Amino acid sequence: MGNIPPQAKKVFTGQIFDVYQWEQTMFDGSTETFEMLQRPNMVQILTVVEDKILVIQEEQPNMPQVTSIPGGRQDAEDATPLEAAKRELEEETGYTSTEWSELFLWEPHRKIAMKQYCFLAKHATQTGVQQLDPGERISSTIISFEEFITLASSNIFQAQELQKEILRMRLEPGALEAFRERLFS
Amino acid sequence: MGNIPPQAKKVFTGQIFDVYQWEQTMFDGSTETFEMLQRPNMVQILTVVEDKILVIQEEQPNMPQVTSIPGGRQDAEDATPLEAAKRELEEETGYTSTEWSELFLWEPHRKIAMKQYCFLAKHATQTGVQQLDPGERISSTIISFEEFITLASSNIFQAQELQKEILRMRLEPGALEAFRERLFS
Repeated sequence: MGNIPPQAKKVFTGQIFDVYQWEQTMFDGSTETFEMLQRPNMVQILTVVEDKILVIQEEQPNMPQVTSIPGGRQDAEDATPLEAAKRELEEETGYTSTEWSELFLWEPHRKIAMKQYCFLAKHATQTGVQQLDPGERISSTIISFEEFITLASSNIFQAQELQKEILRMRLEPGALEAFRERLFS
Repeated sequence: MGNIPPQAKKVFTGQIFDVYQWEQTMFDGSTETFEMLQRPNMVQILTVVEDKILVIQEEQPNMPQVTSIPGGRQDAEDATPLEAAKRELEEETGYTSTEWSELFLWEPHRKIAMKQYCFLAKHATQTGVQQLDPGERISSTIISFEEFITLASSNIFQAQELQKEILRMRLEPGALEAFRERLFS
């Protein structure tokens, strides 16, 4: 949403977050030091398994357990966000798909330059086994579309941008049915 | 949501964001450098003026214009989040209220330690004039409850956590009426 301007200088390189600053001209002609962050793109995967949807319970060190869908960061090894999504789904669940498409693209933060992608993986099948990092504990569950909509609307669901899309779809006549059609056709 | 653990060290002090890092023990006993940010608390004000609600159009340097409700950061001068809310409302709009309460408290980010408060300012009246920073251009509009619910549900509304609460209320029978009652009683 916010963009880091070209004259900005990187003043800190972090593990996840890089900090940029620049002198910004204000409306009265004075200047102030402005600051924004950059972090790697994030990907999520809405995984359709037969007539159901795959959700995960994830535990990380120093974090409470969360309910979400598979996903993670686009690493240096991932040439594109889609590559990152394919890698994350396979590592976290052992599932793969041959029918991928982009469902949503968000830029959720005003002061953090970061894109968040949600991909749709249709007709997914379990072709391998979980290969987790030492900082992950993940278990998968397959639930019905109706159960997914209820879960994704609730406070315990951690994919917040997807949650907002689903709340909006529930309020717009026909939108949820069109979404179901897109997932399971 | 995430908490910065006590052994974390501050490795960068920014204009807005401070960066903390620590050695985190992983599930297999290995360690990795973990990172989180801390930023000042944010406050928002839902301002009730007679039977209407105050919304703002805000422009900041290097940012697209946004539609939202009054608000800002809790500065060092603000002893409490409520003090910050009173100051921000008066500076941004010239309105004051003698009937304040806390509506919502969110911790929206997993890797950013920050609380976001939404206060309710009932029976507000314009007792002064706008006193803007050189980095702000703000115009206020007073709209009906129904117009507010429509606006707050739409993509152009920037108060994202409040938006989610309102979408949820629209889906829960009776919740929106109870909210209206709380605002205008």
